[in-house]
Amino acid sequence: MILSKQHYALPLVVGVDVGGTKIAAALVDADGVPLHRVRYPTELSSPQATLDSIARAVDQVIEEAGLLPTDIYAVGLGIPGLVDPVRGVGIASVNLNWRNVPVRAELQERLGLPCFIENDVKAAALGEARYGAGRGLDSLVFLIIGTGIAASVVQNHTILRGSHGIAGEIGHAIIEPDGPVCKCGGRGCFEALASGPAIAARAVAKLQAGGSSPLASLPEITAEDVFEAAAGGDPLALQTIREVAAYVAFVVQFLALAYDPQVIVLGGGISLTGNLFFDPIRHALEKQARENWVFREMYSPELVQVTRMGADIAVIGAAALAAMPVG
Amino acid sequence: MILSKQHYALPLVVGVDVGGTKIAAALVDADGVPLHRVRYPTELSSPQATLDSIARAVDQVIEEAGLLPTDIYAVGLGIPGLVDPVRGVGIASVNLNWRNVPVRAELQERLGLPCFIENDVKAAALGEARYGAGRGLDSLVFLIIGTGIAASVVQNHTILRGSHGIAGEIGHAIIEPDGPVCKCGGRGCFEALASGPAIAARAVAKLQAGGSSPLASLPEITAEDVFEAAAGGDPLALQTIREVAAYVAFVVQFLALAYDPQVIVLGGGISLTGNLFFDPIRHALEKQARENWVFREMYSPELVQVTRMGADIAVIGAAALAAMPVG
Repeated sequence: MILSKQHYALPLVVGVDVGGTKIAAALVDADGVPLHRVRYPTELSSPQATLDSIARAVDQVIEEAGLLPTDIYAVGLGIPGLVDPVRGVGIASVNLNWRNVPVRAELQERLGLPCFIENDVKAAALGEARYGAGRGLDSLVFLIIGTGIAASVVQNHTILRGSHGIAGEIGHAIIEPDGPVCKCGGRGCFEALASGPAIAARAVAKLQAGGSSPLASLPEITAEDVFEAAAGGDPLALQTIREVAAYVAFVVQFLALAYDPQVIVLGGGISLTGNLFFDPIRHALEKQARENWVFREMYSPELVQVTRMGADIAVIGAAALAAMPVG
Repeated sequence: MILSKQHYALPLVVGVDVGGTKIAAALVDADGVPLHRVRYPTELSSPQATLDSIARAVDQVIEEAGLLPTDIYAVGLGIPGLVDPVRGVGIASVNLNWRNVPVRAELQERLGLPCFIENDVKAAALGEARYGAGRGLDSLVFLIIGTGIAASVVQNHTILRGSHGIAGEIGHAIIEPDGPVCKCGGRGCFEALASGPAIAARAVAKLQAGGSSPLASLPEITAEDVFEAAAGGDPLALQTIREVAAYVAFVVQFLALAYDPQVIVLGGGISLTGNLFFDPIRHALEKQARENWVFREMYSPELVQVTRMGADIAVIGAAALAAMPVG
């Protein structure tokens, strides 16, 4: 039994991050520590097939750990798109090609375990609030910057949903009315300016405008390539990152003043880029705190942090959905 | 007795708007209807003198209505600046020259009535939530645009305060890093771009840049003058208002996506300007809803409204502080 030599806190839960290409499942203990992980390709041929592949991933992580389903308290699932956690329904997910899928009922039948579902970003925020930078605090904003961008707010252990479940969908706030077209159909949305693909597109635009950079030799440019070039000192890549960081700092001060949370945590791809992206954000906020006394009232170096949970945040967040209520 | 011929709902409360130049007090019934009003100059020579003038205003409105203090359930006071409603202390108010004044204790002793205090914008938001556009709803954002700018959020009959009491202080979000200097010390804050004084300053700048307008003949220009000229068709004044309305629309979409409230209510000076200011804001939001499907999910023509409570919002909001808890 895999767990025999580990120390862990009971009860155990399984957290599942349901992505468009892979399903990540982890056995997570009551302190939010992942004890064992599996990855499974996402079967997308039908919602039933997707649910089957989720169930297989859960079964496998339990079995590989040498446990039985009866050793598991519950299963939590983070799902992209619009989710109704109360009815347990995946309302709409572009990545999974889902409309109104009764995820909880279907999986509870397959697994024989209580299941809880939530939007994946909201789940990550809950994980960060419970086990990460928000541990012991009452309020946290989690801003995820990856392929997409969204914020999620946790107040008193509860996710702020808003009246249409849209609270925190700040990726689709228009920042530059004449900016690039966004996949939501708008123009100049925050997501169209600061997501991973937007970072890559900005570097490409600089090259097309005559800029020179080692990036020019690549057949295709990703955000990771831009960060790698920046780490190597490439001025075009560094300038790209500085410009995008300015948009992020702009939104972070807005979130800070809107919610006045105890901590704002940045997650997503940015959390894997070290200080290259975070330093200019922090400098912009420090400048604002020096100049503006209202912002200064709430600012401290601890206010804005990068998640330290790394790539595990998705499964840990999903696990937090299934964990015992906060006492 | 003044009230003898009126229909009103018991219990009665007194709402007081404590401003830097005048104290407005109103007798308000349980439906939020002001039954009688008085105005009193604010005595600013000392905090004690200010408290005395507040107490006189309360006594006077009760007496003029032919009532006794024992007919009053409680007194609510909206106070500018930082307020601690739990301890009943006015922490800092520039307009009143207050630092840590124990307002509640002092007034309860003078009046022999229970007193409740709150920041004036938060009180107005509560009044709008309870008696105005938010009646029967669970969530409301009140955005006041006057000499200053701030938003206040009411969720489930409770004002969102945040961890430093700053939640909603969106007037000091930086919108244009190279914009005009704000009284907070920052540059390009929303308040420095869209408050009443900012509207006047923008029109003056257009005149100084060679623009022509009947406004040029005035010795001094106020926001009211700009709105009056715009109502008369003056192109410079109309352009000024359009530019400022674009900033307001920008912030309103941000607030909408951040909180996803059932209604966003605009108050302050703007609520007295008819549709001149509101129309371009509404048009910008409608355009965004047409283009951007995330925003469209939450947008409806009722989402953003101008308060219909007019100048009474301040005393009605203060009265809401003193009203019986929502059942």
